[in-house]
Amino acid sequence: MQGKGIMRRGSNLHALGGFNQTVVLDTIRRTPEGLSRVEIAEQTGLSAQTVSNVSRRLLDAGVIREAGIRNLGVGKPRTILQLDPSGHYSIGVHIDPAVLTFVLLNIEGEILTHTTRRTPSAADPGAVISLMRDSIEEIILSSGIDRERVLGVGIASPGPIDMARGVVMDPPLLTSWHGVALRDELETATGLFVLLEKDVTAAAVGELWKSTGSDRDDFLYFYYGTGVGVGLVLDREVVRGPTSNAGDAGHIVVDPTGPVCRCGRRGCLGDAISPVTIVRSAIDRGVIEDPGAELDTAFIDEAFSRVALLARGGDDRALGLIDNIARDVAEAIVTIVNLLDLDQVVLGGPYWGRVSDFLLARMPELINGSAALATLRRVSVTGSRIGDDGAAVGAACLVLDATLTPRSATLFIS
Amino acid sequence: MQGKGIMRRGSNLHALGGFNQTVVLDTIRRTPEGLSRVEIAEQTGLSAQTVSNVSRRLLDAGVIREAGIRNLGVGKPRTILQLDPSGHYSIGVHIDPAVLTFVLLNIEGEILTHTTRRTPSAADPGAVISLMRDSIEEIILSSGIDRERVLGVGIASPGPIDMARGVVMDPPLLTSWHGVALRDELETATGLFVLLEKDVTAAAVGELWKSTGSDRDDFLYFYYGTGVGVGLVLDREVVRGPTSNAGDAGHIVVDPTGPVCRCGRRGCLGDAISPVTIVRSAIDRGVIEDPGAELDTAFIDEAFSRVALLARGGDDRALGLIDNIARDVAEAIVTIVNLLDLDQVVLGGPYWGRVSDFLLARMPELINGSAALATLRRVSVTGSRIGDDGAAVGAACLVLDATLTPRSATLFIS
Repeated sequence: MQGKGIMRRGSNLHALGGFNQTVVLDTIRRTPEGLSRVEIAEQTGLSAQTVSNVSRRLLDAGVIREAGIRNLGVGKPRTILQLDPSGHYSIGVHIDPAVLTFVLLNIEGEILTHTTRRTPSAADPGAVISLMRDSIEEIILSSGIDRERVLGVGIASPGPIDMARGVVMDPPLLTSWHGVALRDELETATGLFVLLEKDVTAAAVGELWKSTGSDRDDFLYFYYGTGVGVGLVLDREVVRGPTSNAGDAGHIVVDPTGPVCRCGRRGCLGDAISPVTIVRSAIDRGVIEDPGAELDTAFIDEAFSRVALLARGGDDRALGLIDNIARDVAEAIVTIVNLLDLDQVVLGGPYWGRVSDFLLARMPELINGSAALATLRRVSVTGSRIGDDGAAVGAACLVLDATLTPRSATLFIS
Repeated sequence: MQGKGIMRRGSNLHALGGFNQTVVLDTIRRTPEGLSRVEIAEQTGLSAQTVSNVSRRLLDAGVIREAGIRNLGVGKPRTILQLDPSGHYSIGVHIDPAVLTFVLLNIEGEILTHTTRRTPSAADPGAVISLMRDSIEEIILSSGIDRERVLGVGIASPGPIDMARGVVMDPPLLTSWHGVALRDELETATGLFVLLEKDVTAAAVGELWKSTGSDRDDFLYFYYGTGVGVGLVLDREVVRGPTSNAGDAGHIVVDPTGPVCRCGRRGCLGDAISPVTIVRSAIDRGVIEDPGAELDTAFIDEAFSRVALLARGGDDRALGLIDNIARDVAEAIVTIVNLLDLDQVVLGGPYWGRVSDFLLARMPELINGSAALATLRRVSVTGSRIGDDGAAVGAACLVLDATLTPRSATLFIS
């Protein structure tokens, strides 16, 4: 949010020190086998003296460790620096209308524990917060880590959110949530530092965190969950937008012959491919049996899995339903890559894994064969490196990210 | 393009000096009445010594001037610094399939001269480049400025472009242009520094350049020309995308009952509202007479003006045609602001001025009344500060921008 409402601010040596520290840390983090101070200086362009000073501070803080000596035969043997995996930890929570997912990461971004809880069916925010607190305490206790070394908790929540106040506004799929002060309430309940982020943005943060080198400088993360949305990464930074609510792709028109959406248009993406729509279509077409009751989130989750399984077994009608998902998502992706000049698409989210093989097989040709595609380059489509837990892992990465990632905004005098 | 393919680079004092220089210059530029060194230090957070050193360099280079003394009654009288409007100049060229527009700006961004030429009807790139060269020489001669003080020429061209090579690829509306090395050829022809940019991006650069303070940190610039497109500004920086071809909005589906686009879909924005479509509809509905010949760019331009004039006179059918433009553009804008969390829309481009009053009157209610709008804030819709010449002025601003605007990427060690 730097720069809002004021003239651009200059930079000074104090801000520069912090920035260079995260540059060094980022370089170490992205080189799991470790590297020497000389190599860090070469890769970052920083002076040997700066690298030496920064490394000393990071060693003292227990963030990195010295991991042996490398002898190159010429010159002095070089001490290898690595992240200290037992140095610090972070917890991520993903609130999905159907399920709460919790992960514990070490500072290398490795998942140490993973647990899920069904989201309390009353969808009462108080009950959800209590369950989150209890689960977080249990994770810390059972993992045996020092609570002091937990950097914080990141929460990935359906939007819209009020970022400044840490409040979840009125998520369309959590109907009893109105202005829930999730960040502050969880901070009070746990005593831990808490960050709140929109689910799709958190998932993109996680994906960016897991990327190495330059392979994912710019990409579109397509999130397939109870709701759908996109996370956008441009030039290695996640696009949040002025109020941190970027990524709503639900009303992109993808199928003019599709069902009427609540917005009055036909064939909006969010409506056309939502798990409940797919399950309803599966019932209507006799692919699965009508439960004769309201379709609750647990049923939809289970029924969606069944449709995917039938498709895998060769059921034509089930395959047709999943092919429609591929077509609709491809249409939306063409619209977005045209706007932002992207050529990398990453697919993920809680419903992604069950249909990933179908979508990965179909979408590249659908996107690149579209006469509406403006980009001159071939668009690549890959699955998330993290998988179904992307938003939870991303939320935990947010906390690591706040500590470790160089961001140009931090260069300005605050 | 900083950061592509490499680890993030650190920052050092040399890069910092350049950055701080542009921060000081930006602050001076945005304060037309001028301001003192003390005020610059207050606004930028830079030390008095840094501001003093940077100001000295800028004075020596003839970029700024001392413009009198301000006596506040207390303390020492303060010397006021202002841009030196006779210090440097920049030329902007906009290539539209119908018309070439040339502007000469001083360093304050003030338009000193403005000329237009019909784009050679053969649409032969060589003829266009010769005409550009002759027009540029004429502008320099007739304005009486010192050629040495022309910082360069910015070209706004229909996309797609190959930014790295300065080449215009295959613009859909300039059918005989294939891989024209416009930047290098114009540099050779004029001996001036030349920059190439996509038209919609140039227009957004111009709009950003003309903004003061924080009123336009994040916005969507909707460009209405022979083609349509959008320029995107996030956190005061123009979004170019990895190959500088961001902004293609032509295939957003806005009217499922609309005509079939060349991409095979129905009701794509670019097709639905293009001037040729509007003119064809006007002929079909008897609003204007059928010329009985092919609709060339000159006829379309003139006929579109007539439709607008008829609407202004109260002709219901003409009003209906323009109302459809408003509806279609509003639909596309809802899709884009949802994706990027924007709440400011600026309308401009060569065809904008003729229908601006209708669109400004209709679009705020269409956008904010849409059930598909995700943002919690009201979306504001305003006209470009520059008007129909936005792309040409923006192209000239690019050259000023390259010299004067602080960009975080310049902070990294190159």
